[in-house]
Amino acid sequence: MTLLLTNEDVEQVLDMPASVNALEPAYRDMVSGTAVSRRLSQTYLPGPLPDSSYCLKTVEGGSEALGVMAVRLTSDVLSGRYVGGKLRREKIAAAPGNRFLGLVLLFSLSTGELLAIMPDGIIQRLRVGASSALAAARLAREDATSLALIGAGNQAEAQVKGLACARVLEHVRVYSPTLEHRVEFANRMSRELGLRVDAVGSPAAALDGADIVATATNSGEPVLDVSLLRAGMHVTFIRESEGDAVTFQRADTLVVHSQQGEIDHYTPRGREDLAQLQRGRGYPWHNYPDLADLITGRTPGRTDDRQLTMFMNNLGIGIQFAALGAYVCREAREQGLGQEIPGDWFLESLQP
Amino acid sequence: MTLLLTNEDVEQVLDMPASVNALEPAYRDMVSGTAVSRRLSQTYLPGPLPDSSYCLKTVEGGSEALGVMAVRLTSDVLSGRYVGGKLRREKIAAAPGNRFLGLVLLFSLSTGELLAIMPDGIIQRLRVGASSALAAARLAREDATSLALIGAGNQAEAQVKGLACARVLEHVRVYSPTLEHRVEFANRMSRELGLRVDAVGSPAAALDGADIVATATNSGEPVLDVSLLRAGMHVTFIRESEGDAVTFQRADTLVVHSQQGEIDHYTPRGREDLAQLQRGRGYPWHNYPDLADLITGRTPGRTDDRQLTMFMNNLGIGIQFAALGAYVCREAREQGLGQEIPGDWFLESLQP
Repeated sequence: MTLLLTNEDVEQVLDMPASVNALEPAYRDMVSGTAVSRRLSQTYLPGPLPDSSYCLKTVEGGSEALGVMAVRLTSDVLSGRYVGGKLRREKIAAAPGNRFLGLVLLFSLSTGELLAIMPDGIIQRLRVGASSALAAARLAREDATSLALIGAGNQAEAQVKGLACARVLEHVRVYSPTLEHRVEFANRMSRELGLRVDAVGSPAAALDGADIVATATNSGEPVLDVSLLRAGMHVTFIRESEGDAVTFQRADTLVVHSQQGEIDHYTPRGREDLAQLQRGRGYPWHNYPDLADLITGRTPGRTDDRQLTMFMNNLGIGIQFAALGAYVCREAREQGLGQEIPGDWFLESLQP
Repeated sequence: MTLLLTNEDVEQVLDMPASVNALEPAYRDMVSGTAVSRRLSQTYLPGPLPDSSYCLKTVEGGSEALGVMAVRLTSDVLSGRYVGGKLRREKIAAAPGNRFLGLVLLFSLSTGELLAIMPDGIIQRLRVGASSALAAARLAREDATSLALIGAGNQAEAQVKGLACARVLEHVRVYSPTLEHRVEFANRMSRELGLRVDAVGSPAAALDGADIVATATNSGEPVLDVSLLRAGMHVTFIRESEGDAVTFQRADTLVVHSQQGEIDHYTPRGREDLAQLQRGRGYPWHNYPDLADLITGRTPGRTDDRQLTMFMNNLGIGIQFAALGAYVCREAREQGLGQEIPGDWFLESLQP
């Protein structure tokens, strides 16, 4: 049988602490040579509307210990609109019922069969927050209590929740350009996490006195002014465009999530413009230690309270989806969640 | 709704002539910049038994005209056994009911939703034969009537059927090492295709006087002796290991299926051995014209009856699965084949 789950099912079994615990051994397995991740690819075609595009994003990974290989696959329709003269692409809910398609598929290493199909929405947020948490647990000062957050969307929420697993936070200051968004976010997070969350009017106000800084935006431009950074801070980014070379060079220690760095982009001949907004800046991430190095001690964490440390959570890797997917699958089966559909729908007698 | 098909369904709507017709425009779209293919990747982990391995193979492609992006995905358990001191890996039917997992998934470019799920077994054979047919139609002599076939498996069958679409074949000679296999193959193909098919005892006997030569083996070693090649022949290979540099250099014209050439292999750290048997030989396929160039006339086909032409059907490309999958989906829906399953099983309200 193949287990079919919804985001509601996933949410019942997976929270941030469970995600942090499930991810940590998977990074260790990457170093010990018992896990693998395929580099993220994005394959584009023109979309259904002017300036729109279609993008299929896939990444794969698995480990012997988990017994699974995972594929994470999103089938995105991206609208194109001009904001301040610049083209911006945004995912649109183009599927029936204003929905999206994002899936995690799990395959058995011993039989090849499809074990589970689950949506990626909950997992996607948790895995980014959890990997930032694993980095912060080794890079932030032990006595860090205050967090500056730039961004007030889903990924910002995941960063607060993740970082709250790594350190005992007492105070969060959140900035995002829209007053309404940051106030709503501050009120909601304050209630959910039971700590003081204030909305502030500028990045400078957010960073003033902060021990940890997290950017969690969709921005294609740097969101931090390097002059706001202070000795002893830990700064975590969720995409490389949130920082710039000057900022990264200021770090005493910079750890990257994936040394694979750049996404593999595929576009039709002559249509390189379709991927243009998603291209990396060519930073040499392969020269930096990665999160697996940090977790296994191959690279040291913070050694001094004066160090400025950074974590560039640049790219998702397949093993994250394998680790969280396998955990969700096991827990959901134990709790009788989801529906079992015939596994033989996906099998064949002919050799592929 | 998402259309779920079996190989029996696929076989009812897709045959070799339909495959050739469905593929040709997809190659044209690659050249005109309205289609895309992501390079094949294979991601490995150790398998469940000694010397075994697990391999997830994925490739993607689609086009505006088809309105779909396709993913072809096989989840393979490979046994390891030593034959003559050399490790050989073979796909094993490890899934329940001695089955395999190989799927083609089709996604809508306009909504992102999952349109269809179908097994890849029939499509996989037809697409290789059909692409060889498209090449032979432009590279074989117009008056070619005799075919030498090296190999007597599923892919050999697809080659005969494909090449019979390209030229009016009168006589086929088949060689494979096992007498029983080649005789069974000759008898069966003779009946099915209504032409003379003889089993012969050596590659030399097969090639003697042949107008077209097709290799369709699992061999990791060259299967043709270059001294058997004659002016005017057209030779088609289904994998690069079937030939060697000396053979390829003899071609007056050599067209390659995919300039992408090498597969992207991913293995756990220190386990490069898992992919070793699948690695390419580093031939510079990107310097040769590809099938799309040939079909669109960007590279000429045969211009002279004395030319020795070759087609290296080296790697599958995603657009093949998109073109055949979209055709199958449309025809199956028209004929009421397969079963419709709820499309919302694969959708989510959360943004991926």
